[in-house]
Amino acid sequence: MINNENLTMLTDFYEITMANGYFQSGNVEDIAYFDMFFRKVPDGGGYAIMAGVEQAVEYLKSLHFTAEDIEFLRGKDIFCESFLDYLRNFKFTCDVWAVPEGTPIFPHEPILTVRGPVIQAQFVETMLLLIINHQSLIATKANRIVRAAKGRPVMEFGTRRAHGTAAAVFGARAAYIGGCAGTACAIADRDYGITALGTMAHSWVQMFPSEYEAFKKYAEIYPDNCVLLVDTYNVLRSGVPAAIKVFKELKPKKMGIRIDSGDVAYLTKKARKMLDEAGLTECSITVSNSLDEYIIRDIILEGAQIDSFGVGERLITAKSEPVFGGVYKLSALEQDGVIIPKIKISENVEKITNPGFKTLYRLFDRDNHKALADVMTLDGEEIPEVDGYEIFDPNAIWKKKRLCNFYAKNLRIQLFDKGTCVYECPDIEEVKEYCREQMETLWDETLRFENPQTYYVDLSQNLWDVKNKLIEEHTIR
Amino acid sequence: MINNENLTMLTDFYEITMANGYFQSGNVEDIAYFDMFFRKVPDGGGYAIMAGVEQAVEYLKSLHFTAEDIEFLRGKDIFCESFLDYLRNFKFTCDVWAVPEGTPIFPHEPILTVRGPVIQAQFVETMLLLIINHQSLIATKANRIVRAAKGRPVMEFGTRRAHGTAAAVFGARAAYIGGCAGTACAIADRDYGITALGTMAHSWVQMFPSEYEAFKKYAEIYPDNCVLLVDTYNVLRSGVPAAIKVFKELKPKKMGIRIDSGDVAYLTKKARKMLDEAGLTECSITVSNSLDEYIIRDIILEGAQIDSFGVGERLITAKSEPVFGGVYKLSALEQDGVIIPKIKISENVEKITNPGFKTLYRLFDRDNHKALADVMTLDGEEIPEVDGYEIFDPNAIWKKKRLCNFYAKNLRIQLFDKGTCVYECPDIEEVKEYCREQMETLWDETLRFENPQTYYVDLSQNLWDVKNKLIEEHTIR
Repeated sequence: MINNENLTMLTDFYEITMANGYFQSGNVEDIAYFDMFFRKVPDGGGYAIMAGVEQAVEYLKSLHFTAEDIEFLRGKDIFCESFLDYLRNFKFTCDVWAVPEGTPIFPHEPILTVRGPVIQAQFVETMLLLIINHQSLIATKANRIVRAAKGRPVMEFGTRRAHGTAAAVFGARAAYIGGCAGTACAIADRDYGITALGTMAHSWVQMFPSEYEAFKKYAEIYPDNCVLLVDTYNVLRSGVPAAIKVFKELKPKKMGIRIDSGDVAYLTKKARKMLDEAGLTECSITVSNSLDEYIIRDIILEGAQIDSFGVGERLITAKSEPVFGGVYKLSALEQDGVIIPKIKISENVEKITNPGFKTLYRLFDRDNHKALADVMTLDGEEIPEVDGYEIFDPNAIWKKKRLCNFYAKNLRIQLFDKGTCVYECPDIEEVKEYCREQMETLWDETLRFENPQTYYVDLSQNLWDVKNKLIEEHTIR
Repeated sequence: MINNENLTMLTDFYEITMANGYFQSGNVEDIAYFDMFFRKVPDGGGYAIMAGVEQAVEYLKSLHFTAEDIEFLRGKDIFCESFLDYLRNFKFTCDVWAVPEGTPIFPHEPILTVRGPVIQAQFVETMLLLIINHQSLIATKANRIVRAAKGRPVMEFGTRRAHGTAAAVFGARAAYIGGCAGTACAIADRDYGITALGTMAHSWVQMFPSEYEAFKKYAEIYPDNCVLLVDTYNVLRSGVPAAIKVFKELKPKKMGIRIDSGDVAYLTKKARKMLDEAGLTECSITVSNSLDEYIIRDIILEGAQIDSFGVGERLITAKSEPVFGGVYKLSALEQDGVIIPKIKISENVEKITNPGFKTLYRLFDRDNHKALADVMTLDGEEIPEVDGYEIFDPNAIWKKKRLCNFYAKNLRIQLFDKGTCVYECPDIEEVKEYCREQMETLWDETLRFENPQTYYVDLSQNLWDVKNKLIEEHTIR
């Protein structure tokens, strides 16, 4: 993915065995619909943030099997030559719809749909899930952390603990969409325009005979923006006094200290006092030690004196829950232009899929523009705005609510039309700003870190009827 | 990393600000030593598995700054032209030593050391940590899961939940080193020779009018190895009966069923009985539903009838603890050929670094070849094998133990000599086999999943003396 290499073969092997199966069964031209959705927000949160669409688009644009791929598959001795020929001439011709990046998303919603010949629509499962699961995970986690920081900038500092190179780069990208101010990762700046910053490691301080000399040299070289790491030996007895001495002597334009260990609530209060007493009220304090949304919330409540945060491993790995469980399920077939809804049954009611080709609407309050509910309908259904609209909980249908004074917005956009990309991915700054705006449409109750109010994601009566008819048909008596 | 792209700029930005700092301070030729080590085994385990050395070697071989990199850095407006010239002609000339892949490793050990001009030795920090942290994390987790399976093959099935493309591919590689039998990820097979397998998704079953027809078609196409997914509708009432019918009719050479949901202990016992009663005793049962070492251990204890496991998200993200906390710290400087040990002090005793250029020995029992202890010494020290050797706990020096009848092995090998790679990375099969052998040198007490015995990692008396002298010098009174 970095540098647009061809990753067509980055797929679960079963996508290929199934493709060969469909090819040999004569199903090559069968049209199928697949939905991507997730069942549960990580960390027990009330919302997730869609991310990764740009990389998904790049992936779909670049799909093709190279001679090397064909040779590898031939070596497996289970594929026929006519199928390998088919792959050699493979061309992606599907339609794709998705929720744009930066949009808050909720469980069970079709956040992405692929329609097209079954071999193709099935084949792209693995990478679409991989890309969107990963970036949505990190964007969601970053958004929680940024909200905990209450307006103080949060930098993504996790490169060295990321799960490989793509996790570092696209994790930085997703964190930026979720609200981070920048990253430590230089290549994410070069390739994706995400501001990279960084100053010094403890080793810089160790390289010089004294902390004072290390700081002084740094301030001489970087007089415009001088952030000194003050915890190599002893923050309050050595690091901060040395920093104060250097700041007073060399007067850098912007000055700051960073603390990377110890009890940052205690240390920042003490350090702030020392800096202020030295007349350095404009000197900022950054902390960066195993932070996440819970610790940031707590140390701010304790009165820690912090101007910005660097968040590493717990952001870049989404440590508290490192899995975004997006799945990709068959929702319909098309025969002679007629859509035949398909369902996957499960013992667990939550795991039963929503069948059919669907439209996803978000209903907003006309007065305050808050999001009231999302409604899935069958494709082509419209939500009548004029006379009010009754929604009901699909898991408890007696729970009904009539919405008035709202407008409905189709949440999804088309990315591909018969294999041609018809979507221009917005600039990352635009995505980030869109995410910030959309987050403001959510109620505080949905935003709570723990035990949030469940946002309404309902089915239209028509879709509900179709679903229940299919469940009935599949019930074994 | 996939396809050897140049990732020189995949680095924390501070590596570059520090490099410019050293350049401008006239420290370009100063020789520094950096150690990579970790402080804590994930999941409270007793050992970790070293992995990622091959990718680290590839990275170091390919280090160079392109014109695009230089242009990007120039745009930051903080670097002088002479420094950018230096980068343009940058050539890696360091020495590098590391523990080979597949070796069990323990906290505080220098698992990798870089010696060379400080700018270079510092610069490679981010990527070396990223690569080795990631792969060691997954190899360690995989090894726990494989041990829980008690000889049953474990396949890595996590591609769709991996944190980006590199996490999928190198996660599959690391899982293989840790003992997995293969992967679902096709590109990991094509590029790294890790056997990829895969059969069908639920959508295959949904595409046909009935489960029976779906299974029959699959068995016709794959008569040599036919594994049927039996939980699309109802495992015991629909899936297994349909599979039995197809197996009896078509008699595939190898046959198996896979269950991906529900209570697999209960379902596999029932399914085994049904298969056996149908005379299909050779039909294997695979399960693959949110597994990890704890669940696998427990369902085997419950008598689940399972022949192999597919393990996805909890392996590929190391879900229970997704961070391998390797760090990279300055341990020495060299001036006029004399090594000057350096230390990083911390309030937390565990966080104080081990100074100096060191050798890492593993001491094995001459009779049963079990690992007795690891000992770090200053470079050049030897461990006398003949008259016995007294080790002591560096955190409790009154705890002493005299070892006799052992042999000492230098655990590390040299990867680079003045920038030239002098190491040929072994084949992945060799690494996997080496890992399996080395795991047999550990005691059961160290292998326990929870609350294992802490393996001895001690310092030689000389190293201990150097460390304490430095602590004394840095103590602020």
